This record gives sequence, C-alpha cells and structure tokens, in this order.
Amino acid sequence: MGTIGEAGEFGLIARLTRRLPQGPAVLLGPGDDAAVVAAPDGRVVATTDLLVEGRHFRRDWSGPYDIGRKAAAQNLADIVAMGARPTALLVGFAAPPATAAGWAERLYDGLADECREAGAAVAGGDVVGAPEITLAVTALGDLGGGAPLTRSGARPGDIVAVRGRLGHAAAGLALLGAGRDGPAELIAAHRRPRPPYEAGREARSHGATALLDVSDGLVQDLGHIAAASGVRIDVDSAAVPVPEILGPDGLRHALTGGEDHAFAGTFPANAVLPSSWRRIGIVTEGAGVRVDGSEPQNGGWDHFRPKSGGSRNVYGTMR
Amino acid sequence: MGTIGEAGEFGLIARLTRRLPQGPAVLLGPGDDAAVVAAPDGRVVATTDLLVEGRHFRRDWSGPYDIGRKAAAQNLADIVAMGARPTALLVGFAAPPATAAGWAERLYDGLADECREAGAAVAGGDVVGAPEITLAVTALGDLGGGAPLTRSGARPGDIVAVRGRLGHAAAGLALLGAGRDGPAELIAAHRRPRPPYEAGREARSHGATALLDVSDGLVQDLGHIAAASGVRIDVDSAAVPVPEILGPDGLRHALTGGEDHAFAGTFPANAVLPSSWRRIGIVTEGAGVRVDGSEPQNGGWDHFRPKSGGSRNVYGTMR
Repeated sequence: MGTIGEAGEFGLIARLTRRLPQGPAVLLGPGDDAAVVAAPDGRVVATTDLLVEGRHFRRDWSGPYDIGRKAAAQNLADIVAMGARPTALLVGFAAPPATAAGWAERLYDGLADECREAGAAVAGGDVVGAPEITLAVTALGDLGGGAPLTRSGARPGDIVAVRGRLGHAAAGLALLGAGRDGPAELIAAHRRPRPPYEAGREARSHGATALLDVSDGLVQDLGHIAAASGVRIDVDSAAVPVPEILGPDGLRHALTGGEDHAFAGTFPANAVLPSSWRRIGIVTEGAGVRVDGSEPQNGGWDHFRPKSGGSRNVYGTMR
Repeated sequence: MGTIGEAGEFGLIARLTRRLPQGPAVLLGPGDDAAVVAAPDGRVVATTDLLVEGRHFRRDWSGPYDIGRKAAAQNLADIVAMGARPTALLVGFAAPPATAAGWAERLYDGLADECREAGAAVAGGDVVGAPEITLAVTALGDLGGGAPLTRSGARPGDIVAVRGRLGHAAAGLALLGAGRDGPAELIAAHRRPRPPYEAGREARSHGATALLDVSDGLVQDLGHIAAASGVRIDVDSAAVPVPEILGPDGLRHALTGGEDHAFAGTFPANAVLPSSWRRIGIVTEGAGVRVDGSEPQNGGWDHFRPKSGGSRNVYGTMR
C-alpha cells in the first residue's frame, strides 16, 4: 500500500476522495478551491473540532476506522444538537509522511460511514504533512425552517431529559487506562460513540426549549444550559440511567463522563416524551447545577486544565 | 498575561472570542454547540485548511498577528476564488499549554482584522492542547445568486489573466531561508499575503469562465484549470508581471511561487478587463501548461512530495 508520503498530496487526495459519500446536498465536491453545499433554509449551521493524536485518541487504543467514525460523530452530533439536519463534512487531515496510506484510507472509511449514518456527505478537505496526526472536522447542517435549539431557552418549570448512553465512553477509557480490554461494550463505546442522531428531530417535535450534546460530561454540559438560560438545573441521580455494566463508578461516569454524545434537553413540563428519553431533573430559579440538592465537585473537564473527575484525564494533563 | 494553560479552555475561549468581529451574517456566534450563519443564496461555499507550525509557518519568522492574517487570508481567498462573498470563519486552534495567552490573542487579532478586510466574521471554533501549534481554518461564503466560478469552465480561445502579486511571498521566504531580513516588502509579502478580494466580483462581472487563487504556484495552479477544463494553457512569460524587486530569480518565483494568493482566471477572448488584471496567456486545445511553448520542469509544489522548484521547500521535505 505504501505511505502517504509516497502517494503524494494529490495522489493521496484522489485515493481518499473516492471513498467518500457524495450526497445530494453536495452541489460541488472536492477538487476546486471550495465546495458548494446546499443550504435550502437560507441559514447554515456550522461547527468545527480539532482532534489531536495522544490527546483525543491513541493509535494503540483505537484503529483508524473507529477514529474516523468518532471524529465525524462528535461534529455531526453538534449539528443535531442545534436541531439541524447534518448535510456535509469538511475534513482536514495532518499526518507524518511515513503514515501507511492504508491507515489513512481506513480513517476515511470511518468518516464516510458515520456520515452515511447521519445522512451527510463529505464535501471537501485538506491533507498536509505534520509530526503528529491531527484531524480538523467541520460539519454543516440545515435547520429546515426551524429555530435553532440553543442552550439559552430553558425556563423554570421545564423538565430535563436525556437521550442516549451516558458514561459508557468514560468507563471504556478508564478500562483501557488500567490496561484492561473488556467489557467489550464499554471499550467499543470509547472507540466509537453512537450518537442517537434522531434526537434532534424528536426534541424539536416535542417542543424542546434547549438542547445540547453531552461531550464534556452531563453535569458540566447541563451547567452550560443553566448559565446560558439563567436558570438552575436540579438532577435526581436516581433517575440517571446507570446500567450495571458501568461498574462501581457507574454514577460518576454517567454524571461526569463525556464523549458518548448523548443529547440532553429541557422541555415544557407537560411534554410527553418518547420512552427513549429519560427524565432526569427539573429546571428551577437560580444558577448552576445541583445533583440531589448538592453542588457537584467534579463537573467534567476542561481541555487546558483538567479536573480530577474528567474522563479524558487518562491522556494526561497538558504539558 | 500568563499562559493559555493557566487561562484554561473556557477562560481562553472567552478572551479570544471577545476580540472577534461579529458581522450581520453570523446569526448565532460562539458559545453553543454550533454557529448559525446566513446563507441567503440557499447554497453555502465552504473550504478548510490546516496550518502546521514548522511547515506552514515558523514562529521565529512570523509573529502571531501575521500568522493569523495569513491563515484567514488563504481561506478567504478560496471563497473569493469561487466567485463568492466570504461570510464567516470557523477557527480550530491547537497549542501547547505553555503558549503565552498574549501570543494567542495577537493571533486572533490577525484573524479578526483579515476577516474585517474581507467582510467576514468569526462564527466559532475550538481550542485544544497539542504539542505543536496547528490552525484549522474553515471559511464560508455566499454566491449571491451566481454560478460558482469553478476550474472547469475554460474554453479554447479564452484569455488567461491574473490579478494580484506573484512570486513575492516565495522571494520573501527564500530571503528568510538565506538568513536575510530584506527587502522588507518581500519579507512582509511572505508573512502576510494580501489577496485582492475584489477579484472575485471583478472576474464574475467580466464573464470569467474559470477562476482560482494561486496558492501552489502559477504554473501548477493553471495546470489545475487545464486539467479540470480539458484544455491547454499557453503562458507568455514576457507578459507575467515580474517587478525588479523580485531579483534575478524573479520569473521563477512568479511562475512557481505560491502563497501570494493572487487570482488567475480565464475569460472570453473579447473581455475588456480592468487594468488591475494582467493578460498572461491563452487557452488552446490540448492538455497541460506551456510557458513560451515549453513544458515547465518545476511547476510548483506538493505538500507530501516537494519538487525542487517549490517555494515552501525551505521548510524541508517531509520526514
């Protein structure tokens, strides 16, 4: 297969591009100065994330296919968390020239398959040489005429509900950090988050007043809704889904672990949510997040100043 | 001022975000899961680039303000090269925690000022820790009802014209590589390209059949038009603007040097272009690019497999 350095920039682009889905939203795909993507709503939802080797993923813990799926998923989930439909991804890929071309192809297969699952296409990107592997993923989406579901619309009296798994990715990461390779379900959850992309549509149709995807940890992310909305959020820990597989630290993982890309939202008190949503708390007057009435000590994590409860700290603090 | 590690992720985001222009196109700016940007045309033009320290810039050769301007400029130029109006930038910033917060702020000042010059705003982004400084810039734009100006529309009989400086950035980079610090105009051209953003509008109003920005070198980039359009492009080297300041290697720099982000386009033979555009050749039947009738040996450069004529080789080949 050779290395990406042997393939050369244009050869590599050609090899990677032909693996990528081209959906109807991509009006002009890779190969020009820029892509053209349909934005029928007249507004485009856009988000970008950087994933750096050794910090956001480890090649000895995750294969290229899973890294690709995860990189796409975390950005597609951000689009869905605005109540939008993902349309397209732009992917910047930096890697050492000695990287196997087959590794890069598997990475792009993962990006492509996650896009297919979310109904999006890959519209373009960039490949460059670098000492470490870095992925820069930008996702675009369309609101379909609806208002964006921001973090600022929660009102006292609303209920708080989540859709999707909590704590699984954090538990899997903790296992890998401890040198273990099971339970397989948790390891897999770390390697490949599975955001329930239908959550955006469901939240909108049930009148969600705020929505986000849980990337930094449930408590910390609910704190973002509380701050943006000027409200307090009270979480009932007994209502938080903590399946037995999460082990003795299950509740902590569920409250502080990020990267599962579940969705958390607030809804009018009279909302009748599908059973896939779990009601976990209420919105009240005040500020911050309380769990069973107390202020949590370790709410999540910060990319530059990790706290002791953060799930990604296994990668080490910043040096 | 402290370091970005001391500021923490959310502190740093707050410090950087308040330096950024928020234009009318940004309907929802930084702080939510994703930004919302106006796309009145119903299509959005989108492009992304990665810039890696040591490969695309050196901190001993360029200050943070110029690095920011350059990172924004090269993406904004790609939007303009599609005949679109830049609307918004998304910026991913990876850096070691020991990086001075003031350095990051100057970088964002540069991003902001270049956006202002092009009429765009910064809609969002991401900051993460990493061993090296990496910038991932995504630019969005609006076509305003026009067809995108692609690389594939050139037709035999068209004329070829350029708008903007050629070879200046390459000459400046060569000077820095030789340990020299002047002429100042050339060093500045390397540090901060100045794309003539009005070129997109001008090209469209004069019926351009193809347009791109010169990022890899004139000959190589014209080769992209030739390949995409299925034509041959004949360049008359005597017509290529080579000001005396470029020195004895001036023509080589002008033909193969990238990063000035001039614009090159093809136009109907009867087009009457403004004097700011220089006619440098014609489109004929065939394939490839000829300079004075001959096939050039060193057309430009490739990120993964540099050729000897490439201007960015001063950074060294990929290891």
